[in-house]
Amino acid sequence: MAILIDGKKLAKQVNQHTTTRAAGLIERGIKPGIAVVLVGDDPASQIYTRNKHRLAEKMGLKSDLYRFPTDVKQSTVLGTIKELNNDDSIDAIIVQEPLPDHLDAVAITNAISPAKDVDGLHPDNLGKLFGNQPGNYPVACTPRGIMRIFSYYQVPLAGANVVIVGRSILVGKPLLALLANANATVTIAGRHTKNLRELTTQADILIVATGIAHFIGKDDVKPGAVVIDVGMDRLPSGELTGDVDFAAVEPIAKMITPVPGGVGPMTIASLMEQTVDLAEWRRNGQK
Amino acid sequence: MAILIDGKKLAKQVNQHTTTRAAGLIERGIKPGIAVVLVGDDPASQIYTRNKHRLAEKMGLKSDLYRFPTDVKQSTVLGTIKELNNDDSIDAIIVQEPLPDHLDAVAITNAISPAKDVDGLHPDNLGKLFGNQPGNYPVACTPRGIMRIFSYYQVPLAGANVVIVGRSILVGKPLLALLANANATVTIAGRHTKNLRELTTQADILIVATGIAHFIGKDDVKPGAVVIDVGMDRLPSGELTGDVDFAAVEPIAKMITPVPGGVGPMTIASLMEQTVDLAEWRRNGQK
Repeated sequence: MAILIDGKKLAKQVNQHTTTRAAGLIERGIKPGIAVVLVGDDPASQIYTRNKHRLAEKMGLKSDLYRFPTDVKQSTVLGTIKELNNDDSIDAIIVQEPLPDHLDAVAITNAISPAKDVDGLHPDNLGKLFGNQPGNYPVACTPRGIMRIFSYYQVPLAGANVVIVGRSILVGKPLLALLANANATVTIAGRHTKNLRELTTQADILIVATGIAHFIGKDDVKPGAVVIDVGMDRLPSGELTGDVDFAAVEPIAKMITPVPGGVGPMTIASLMEQTVDLAEWRRNGQK
Repeated sequence: MAILIDGKKLAKQVNQHTTTRAAGLIERGIKPGIAVVLVGDDPASQIYTRNKHRLAEKMGLKSDLYRFPTDVKQSTVLGTIKELNNDDSIDAIIVQEPLPDHLDAVAITNAISPAKDVDGLHPDNLGKLFGNQPGNYPVACTPRGIMRIFSYYQVPLAGANVVIVGRSILVGKPLLALLANANATVTIAGRHTKNLRELTTQADILIVATGIAHFIGKDDVKPGAVVIDVGMDRLPSGELTGDVDFAAVEPIAKMITPVPGGVGPMTIASLMEQTVDLAEWRRNGQK
């Protein structure tokens, strides 16, 4: 029987602390603000955006939505980002992925001021993270939430063998940097990986972010491993599930995140926490 | 018997091509220029700096040395970098590592214009590399040279299991990014890694950058592996050698780099090539 990583409970703690910090700022006349840029009508993006908005409002943060039709021009999106960069009431800018193909997602990411880049995607922030530079800069929220889980559940990282399946810029790559910086031995694998099972069964910590329901089963996991499931998938039945076959893996894991209630709540809690960080850093003249 | 990777020969080819490109630029009145900032009197740094200078002059490039005593002030170094950033005759700025402890190496790195950052250490460049962004930006020269070796010797990267031992920002980390971007499965290990042999013996491609003479022996290598030795070490006898015990590993490897004559010449060839790249990119208004 594995220890169940209770992301909901830990997120609640983080959110309480963030709310208190936000209240302190608001007393000083600083209301931390998030702006979300949403293009098109992807249903998942709309749900994520709504959830962010609700939590932000509940915490007393300013939360603005900039919504554009699917065929919006690149220059319109860039113009909005420029305005938001210069808007002193906005501390955190999110451009909700995925964007339609006709938009240049890289140019849009790079246009966000690094000081407001709450998703940690700007090269300036990614490069500082990758270079393990000191100082304050934002880090992608899912990796940040997972690192908080490791810290709270006292999972030793230095010298641990970590395998990350999935190399996205929002999850796999920043995690790789964070874990390498914490002196873990880290393998980043993806869909081109051969003998994946050989790798995953050696992992002390296995992190899965493939977007494929039940991609990881019992035979893919070393008994006693810590298993982190970033997936948010649907079974053919419509049931929400993760990239890990929880029922099969839970009995042999040391710790495991459920889906839902694991990584998901920590991602959004990290987003709010980092928004307040950005509000503070910007006022302190730090980047 | 392994195929010997002839870094000297390949570097000669690269250097010839770079010389031709430089000559073309010089005809147009553009003489690509390198500036090296050297602090203190570390003997290895002096040798590296001299070698760079000689090759640059031989290729017709401008090569300037800014030399400072060990106790130079941070503000003096930063002032020089600012001048070099604004000096139109300089395309590539190198701050020779290691710097004395009293200097803030990160602040110095970050002060170099990303457009002249020939070592690829600026967060802006590292972040673009890590994010696999399109466009032109400099990459650390040793990793660039190693990627050229893979390309020239037709080493397949997609799906290959690569193990990198050493996580420096000049070698291990940029290689990790380049290889992950090429769809390899990449493990980055270091001195905190337990069961290192278990990892290295699974590598199709093993890259060693530990600075420890003969760190890798026969039992650490999978028969048929491609072995890249970034080391430049001295045996107690004074003999120059690598991080890999070449005599022991060569019989079981598929390909292997010697030391000297492997990675070393490719690093300096890549430096010159990238200087010419920077000269061209800057004139084309690209970063």
